[in-house]
Amino acid sequence: MCGIVGYIGHRQADELIIKGLERLEYRGYDSAGIAIINNGLAIFKKAGKVKALRKMIKTSDTSGTLGIGHTRWATHGEPNDKNAHPHMGNNGRLALVHNGIIENYAVLKSALMAEGHTFSSDTDTEVLVHLIEEIQKEGNLALEEAVRLALNRVEGAYAIAVVDRNNPGILVGARKQSPLLVGIGDNEFFIGSDASPFLDSTKRVVYLEDGQVACISLEKGLQLRNTANEEQPPFIQTLDLQIEALEKEGYEHFMLKEIYEQPKTILDAMRGRISSKESRVTLRGLEEYANRFVRANRIIIVACGTSYHSGLIGEYLIEDLARIPVEVEYASEFRYRNPILSERDIVIAISQSGETADTMAALELAKQKGAMIYGIVNSVGSSIARLTDAGSYIHAGPEIGVASTKAFTGQVTVLTLLALSLARKLSTISNTYFQTLVRELELIPSKVEEILKENDHIKYIAKEVKDHHNALYLGRGYNFPVALEGALKLKEISYVHAEGYPAAEMKHGPIALIDENMPVYVTATNKSAYDKIVSNVQEVVARKGRVIAIVNKGEKLIAKIADHVIEIPSTEEPLTPLLSVIPLQLLSYHIAVELGRNVDQPRNLAKSVTVE
Amino acid sequence: MCGIVGYIGHRQADELIIKGLERLEYRGYDSAGIAIINNGLAIFKKAGKVKALRKMIKTSDTSGTLGIGHTRWATHGEPNDKNAHPHMGNNGRLALVHNGIIENYAVLKSALMAEGHTFSSDTDTEVLVHLIEEIQKEGNLALEEAVRLALNRVEGAYAIAVVDRNNPGILVGARKQSPLLVGIGDNEFFIGSDASPFLDSTKRVVYLEDGQVACISLEKGLQLRNTANEEQPPFIQTLDLQIEALEKEGYEHFMLKEIYEQPKTILDAMRGRISSKESRVTLRGLEEYANRFVRANRIIIVACGTSYHSGLIGEYLIEDLARIPVEVEYASEFRYRNPILSERDIVIAISQSGETADTMAALELAKQKGAMIYGIVNSVGSSIARLTDAGSYIHAGPEIGVASTKAFTGQVTVLTLLALSLARKLSTISNTYFQTLVRELELIPSKVEEILKENDHIKYIAKEVKDHHNALYLGRGYNFPVALEGALKLKEISYVHAEGYPAAEMKHGPIALIDENMPVYVTATNKSAYDKIVSNVQEVVARKGRVIAIVNKGEKLIAKIADHVIEIPSTEEPLTPLLSVIPLQLLSYHIAVELGRNVDQPRNLAKSVTVE
Repeated sequence: MCGIVGYIGHRQADELIIKGLERLEYRGYDSAGIAIINNGLAIFKKAGKVKALRKMIKTSDTSGTLGIGHTRWATHGEPNDKNAHPHMGNNGRLALVHNGIIENYAVLKSALMAEGHTFSSDTDTEVLVHLIEEIQKEGNLALEEAVRLALNRVEGAYAIAVVDRNNPGILVGARKQSPLLVGIGDNEFFIGSDASPFLDSTKRVVYLEDGQVACISLEKGLQLRNTANEEQPPFIQTLDLQIEALEKEGYEHFMLKEIYEQPKTILDAMRGRISSKESRVTLRGLEEYANRFVRANRIIIVACGTSYHSGLIGEYLIEDLARIPVEVEYASEFRYRNPILSERDIVIAISQSGETADTMAALELAKQKGAMIYGIVNSVGSSIARLTDAGSYIHAGPEIGVASTKAFTGQVTVLTLLALSLARKLSTISNTYFQTLVRELELIPSKVEEILKENDHIKYIAKEVKDHHNALYLGRGYNFPVALEGALKLKEISYVHAEGYPAAEMKHGPIALIDENMPVYVTATNKSAYDKIVSNVQEVVARKGRVIAIVNKGEKLIAKIADHVIEIPSTEEPLTPLLSVIPLQLLSYHIAVELGRNVDQPRNLAKSVTVE
Repeated sequence: MCGIVGYIGHRQADELIIKGLERLEYRGYDSAGIAIINNGLAIFKKAGKVKALRKMIKTSDTSGTLGIGHTRWATHGEPNDKNAHPHMGNNGRLALVHNGIIENYAVLKSALMAEGHTFSSDTDTEVLVHLIEEIQKEGNLALEEAVRLALNRVEGAYAIAVVDRNNPGILVGARKQSPLLVGIGDNEFFIGSDASPFLDSTKRVVYLEDGQVACISLEKGLQLRNTANEEQPPFIQTLDLQIEALEKEGYEHFMLKEIYEQPKTILDAMRGRISSKESRVTLRGLEEYANRFVRANRIIIVACGTSYHSGLIGEYLIEDLARIPVEVEYASEFRYRNPILSERDIVIAISQSGETADTMAALELAKQKGAMIYGIVNSVGSSIARLTDAGSYIHAGPEIGVASTKAFTGQVTVLTLLALSLARKLSTISNTYFQTLVRELELIPSKVEEILKENDHIKYIAKEVKDHHNALYLGRGYNFPVALEGALKLKEISYVHAEGYPAAEMKHGPIALIDENMPVYVTATNKSAYDKIVSNVQEVVARKGRVIAIVNKGEKLIAKIADHVIEIPSTEEPLTPLLSVIPLQLLSYHIAVELGRNVDQPRNLAKSVTVE
């Protein structure tokens, strides 16, 4: 969950690394650090964002053309100066940055302490650099050789970059279950957790595979070896990405920009895949494996966080329209449960980044068991995209705000297409209904536009409710997962303890929480069960809870008793999540802004979670 | 969700009804009221508990031998005097008490207002009594006839009792989807939502069926008619229940008594069903339908609240041991989703009361679709027990504390037996492992005893954490549902906003909530994934969260970094929930007591939820 940058070449490394770290802050921003080789080894590190590091080194000598840098998301040891990366061993030669978790660090640490090593941080990472130092010292080995041998003794996940004062012409990197790639420039090389740190210098990259160690020098270029010490040829790809797409385009925050992009991103997710004129829905990844889908016994969706919520909507969509039983599982739970899987089952993984460690581990298990695996991913070329048998990208573009918005609606759009396509193949819905849904789906982007026009009204409501420290979100059917997602959004960026529930469950416990200090956000746009949700709202009002309701235009009953009402256009029931989630995203955004939170980089979080 | 009492006989009705209402307060206690026929019609009603009503009528004339009473759980209209039952029409003849929801009350109310009726409350109930009055007036009809015709025009769920000033010898009752039964004494009759109001007078009862109207007079006794006006013979049963079982037995609260009963109730749930000597697990209800279970395609568990959490544990148990795919659904969601069900699927309903309206509605749907339905229920003879094809009682005895404890462990015990029995039949686990689990299961009651001895230590921790307004509960695998249940317990009785999560999901959002004000309750008794949960605890500690951990005796790693640790005996992993939930129950109990909450009757809640 941390960000790694490395550079070796003919230019000054410091500014290239610092700029790269700033671009990687979406991966974590608890602390930052840099190590530069110049005659000796200069290390600077500091708790807080990269900005603090930049300020710190302003007056120091950081000249040199070889270096590594790190922006951290804490796992072991709290985010302070001493736990910041790079970490060093005891003899002052090595500096190392690390993303991931060394699971057997406690055992290794004891052994190293017995050898006389002393430690100055609480991190698992520091153990690794000491281990490399020890192995290097014992055998008088080359850096890359010592790294390779050390990694053979490590359990866990890692992407690392290492430099050695006594080998001033070599940069070493390695990965296992955490992303790392090498950028190949003009007689210069980069290392990054993704390509953004060096995209303005080169678009030619090599993705490291699990277990590979890269040794980079200006003389010999990039050399790759696996853990068994076999040389492996690098596979160079050319990326098609624009660095400008990473900017805020005038919005105050990335999150707001991304909320407003949704009419376009939902359209992008459908582009070329849907046509009401031809009465057609086509997902290329699905067509390839159509037979397996049609004969599927069960579909299991694995995901985490926001993607888990879109998976729940996928369950409603696929069961409702295509009549195939669907189970949605937290990836982390699925992984450790010896799940029941056969070759007639299909596992769908949903992940914005395509690097979510829990989801990847789940997929590897599913693959072992012979299930077909399908990915719904945003990041092109990401680990999950490469691991799956087939899949559909959501094409939402880079999502920088830590709280996912456009990726969520992109995922739901693709799941809707998937359900519709399967329903068509299985003849589980009538042609008329299919055509109605396709036509309505094409109208969604313009209806989202319409909802975005309510922004001022929603901002006003946010001001009214901002001081409550708790919140409940209620919905039924298709809008139950939307309630979960609305609550997660508020949690993530405003630190308000919000929780989602199926509306009817409230009276089985959570209703005890309701009094005049508890705002209750109700989505009541379902046509089915509408009477029931009106009763649920009555129950809240009877206990003096404050109700903020999302209703269809012209709704009368709830409008009369709720404190605030947000009207949205109506649509077919299976498509309501794509509309009803928008006001909840805006509400969370404005509440967080009102509370003075750091919307795009909320505390404790990281954009993509690459540790289990 | 309300409690209804009625009496007609030769004794004074007031004291019998008030005492009956006190016994029914577990069904709701927002307000109470009574109506007595004596020359005229005397009505008294008051917001608050039955105690307030008792005080109010002390100095009034409530003599008379026919009357009805009500203790309310508000659904329409807040809990105040005017919304309390009984409700009257406009001509002063009728008084009516009601449990349930009249869904089409708005339409009926408009029509009645057009006829000149005026209303004095916000309830749906008042509409019903006006409707009866209007029909009675139009046709100059007998009371029971007017009630029957009115009910034909009503949508929703109800149990009602009605008296008429001009018919001083008649008591009328009716039910649809809410429980109601008639007690038959010695030339006297009772009506009740359950038998507790009259158990000391008679044990002979008639359970009303959906759509039946009971007309009771001392001359003709009990007469039953269905909505089509056909006379139906009453089926009289004799109950085997002791009223003393309803008392607190010296504990300060029912909840604490029920927590301490668990070594016995878990044993009761296993009694006669398990023998390690004979290497045997037998559930009679299952044996009857063994073939259908063994050939089952899928098992779908439907439940609400605490029972939903035991269902989730059931999913882990059955999938893990018997390798049959299981899906757990909120009953309310299942009901409105057109679920995929075939005759090869089995639906298991879990409900303490056996009267949970959402669960009943789900079962009716499942039955229509041809699935076999199986009940795991506490209340013998309850609606769900009568509706299912087969089932297993948990035999926990009456549970009075609104927060379910012994019913939860009883449900989990029965689900464990079910999974073991299926695993045996399907040969999905080895004989050795089967035998190990059976032997370990027999040891659970004594291990629960051992945990209960930690009560003082747990009380001390409760004092330390009581002032935090929020809490997170984390667990993995079998202990993930335990985390959900722990959070629900705290919510219900202390009004602290507690939420459960699978431990690994924390970093996908909820970790943003963590700071020094957020206690985090972690259950880390799993052997599998233990390393991972240690990492999760590290992540919390790194952000200054306060960790209270449930660990196995002798655990070292978490014990070193957590603020508080509760040690429990170890057992086989599938059985851990039966142990790990106990300290969480005690913690919730002591926190609520420290906060001065009404533990047995928390605000806004009712023991069994008989409205959807």
